[in-house]
Amino acid sequence: MPDSIITLTTDFGEDSPYAAVMKGVILGLSPHARLMDLTHQIPPQDIRHAAYFLATALPYFPRETLHVIVVDPGVGSERALLYVEVMDQRLLVPDNGCWTELDRAGRSPPRVRRLTEDRYWRQPVSKTFHGRDILAPVAAHLSLGLDPALLGPSAEEWVRLDRPPVLTGRNSLTGHVVFIDHFGNLITNLRQESLGAAAGADMVVRVARESPRWVHTYADAGPGTLVALVSSSRTVEVAVVQGNAARLLGAGIGTPVRVEWID
Amino acid sequence: MPDSIITLTTDFGEDSPYAAVMKGVILGLSPHARLMDLTHQIPPQDIRHAAYFLATALPYFPRETLHVIVVDPGVGSERALLYVEVMDQRLLVPDNGCWTELDRAGRSPPRVRRLTEDRYWRQPVSKTFHGRDILAPVAAHLSLGLDPALLGPSAEEWVRLDRPPVLTGRNSLTGHVVFIDHFGNLITNLRQESLGAAAGADMVVRVARESPRWVHTYADAGPGTLVALVSSSRTVEVAVVQGNAARLLGAGIGTPVRVEWID
Amino acid sequence: MPDSIITLTTDFGEDSPYAAVMKGVILGLSPHARLMDLTHQIPPQDIRHAAYFLATALPYFPRETLHVIVVDPGVGSERALLYVEVMDQRLLVPDNGCWTELDRAGRSPPRVRRLTEDRYWRQPVSKTFHGRDILAPVAAHLSLGLDPALLGPSAEEWVRLDRPPVLTGRNSLTGHVVFIDHFGNLITNLRQESLGAAAGADMVVRVARESPRWVHTYADAGPGTLVALVSSSRTVEVAVVQGNAARLLGAGIGTPVRVEWID
Repeated sequence: MPDSIITLTTDFGEDSPYAAVMKGVILGLSPHARLMDLTHQIPPQDIRHAAYFLATALPYFPRETLHVIVVDPGVGSERALLYVEVMDQRLLVPDNGCWTELDRAGRSPPRVRRLTEDRYWRQPVSKTFHGRDILAPVAAHLSLGLDPALLGPSAEEWVRLDRPPVLTGRNSLTGHVVFIDHFGNLITNLRQESLGAAAGADMVVRVARESPRWVHTYADAGPGTLVALVSSSRTVEVAVVQGNAARLLGAGIGTPVRVEWID
Repeated sequence: MPDSIITLTTDFGEDSPYAAVMKGVILGLSPHARLMDLTHQIPPQDIRHAAYFLATALPYFPRETLHVIVVDPGVGSERALLYVEVMDQRLLVPDNGCWTELDRAGRSPPRVRRLTEDRYWRQPVSKTFHGRDILAPVAAHLSLGLDPALLGPSAEEWVRLDRPPVLTGRNSLTGHVVFIDHFGNLITNLRQESLGAAAGADMVVRVARESPRWVHTYADAGPGTLVALVSSSRTVEVAVVQGNAARLLGAGIGTPVRVEWID
Repeated sequence: MPDSIITLTTDFGEDSPYAAVMKGVILGLSPHARLMDLTHQIPPQDIRHAAYFLATALPYFPRETLHVIVVDPGVGSERALLYVEVMDQRLLVPDNGCWTELDRAGRSPPRVRRLTEDRYWRQPVSKTFHGRDILAPVAAHLSLGLDPALLGPSAEEWVRLDRPPVLTGRNSLTGHVVFIDHFGNLITNLRQESLGAAAGADMVVRVARESPRWVHTYADAGPGTLVALVSSSRTVEVAVVQGNAARLLGAGIGTPVRVEWID
């Protein structure tokens, strides 16, 4: 695999040298690897933000693309590092739940290994930068064709991200904001298909004491209008046309969003 | 074209997964494409900012480089998506004028097609993310050698960016700020060649009630000095040496800048 | 060297077109160059920030990787532009000291040339964008195999970054903050090996009237705790667990940090 792709997703920012360090380590071992930045702008230690980012983006990549993820508040503790095969992708990731939303109902279960074989690591291993000392060199070895079975034993248990569930009422669904995007759009966990026949004119969306107008796309309403619509991930989204809904509503991850309808 | 370059220019930011999604879609269809980020930091929906960015950067690229641009306040509306050949570059871009400053006097006219052939798109097409569902797959197909004539019909009309003109007085030129760069430098639409003999000691620049000192380069004046000079794009630029002119002057895109001289 | 790597490190930001312009210029001359962004987020004109970034990241790259660095407050002045071989890396960089922390005791001395041969430059050369007009085309020529000896004469003198020294007391070491990373962690110039036997329980760290608790890794203390530890660069680091030490302490580059111990 001389030109295999390795993507990088971190909370390192770009003003710090840490992402560049990982690129250097990977290329030092695997000079032909095709490195690709997905982001270094996950908010610091924000596992829920990373979870949405990864679950949204990774399934679009070619089969067996290798993704290195470093959002790792537990670095240096006993938390494990994992090699995961899920949704036809390959991940190297701390065991903190940031990847488990890729493990979806009805798909084949993930295959997970704990990284324990330190012969594939940089030595000495620091206490605070396992991205450099463990994940980067392991990624390089995998890009050169290393059998993942050599990385460590299979795991049957791992940390799962805990999200509040959608509550189903007789004439309502209550979910919450799971992601706020760069535009300030509020992405919820209310899936389009769960709205069923409700998705239409007799449906009311409620969030932060407001009732956004239901539209099909942003351009259906004038600039500044608070709207609700089906997001590109097929969930309910609340937005301000050419504006910032998170700022307008003071909403954050976890803010409740309710959909009500008339039978 | 197994290693053709595809550049990405968006207002998606890097904290959101949208740019990563487009990379996945492109590589899923065209695994050997060489993806290159130009920026994901165009301010949200800021077509004028994108216009300056594109007009400044794209002409330096190798002939026939393919550029995908997603700054798209009209997504989901009836606005067209275009394939454009201009300045020897190839663009996939919403029809909102963000590219038309590349269409310069004296150059061969652009060749433009409207994207209508949905066999090259992802299905179903969302209402809010045409970058993922239309532009990315079309870019992948083009990188694999698809004839652009198959994308849709030629267009003779398209949206053009409207900028206020330069006003010519007997002893003055009045233009305006067209871009504020990362350093807070004010880039104007007053071109060096239009200053003619005026460019020199007897010329006065006026902006926001200040008269910046005319210099040849930043290092000609001490830190903190307000200066005017010829920018790297050969237009009048107003800067603060090792400081931020936009902040100091409270200037923005559209702020008038006048050059006066003595006959 | 058809697929040689060229990295880019600048203070251009990503909202401005300057980094994209350099990519275009390099690819225009050397279409197969593998461009890699290290960062465009060095704070404007911040040579000390760039110095730490480069000294930390560049040594990890494969031998002879070519690094183009544009943090250049002196652009257009008489400051030289340099080609440098140091730590097995190749650099194109303004002569402002931002690279000299790579020149470490006990390593072979750097080999330095001044860029004077303008046949390898873009013409005309602007006064304000030597990254585009000199460094980018020279990088492209080097990636195609140009002998560095043709770029200009050897230099024996260059600007060195001036940092305050570590002060050694009988029972103390006093250094200072040399870098603040994206997480707000304070990285000092107090090296682990200089602490000697002191590195342990009887050692006290003092910074901004606080005494951070000494730990082995962030996860050793609860969220919000002010801690000191050995950084991944083996220097003393001050951090707030899952928080921002720079903000909490009001610290900046140059803030003194003292380590005291009991004999």
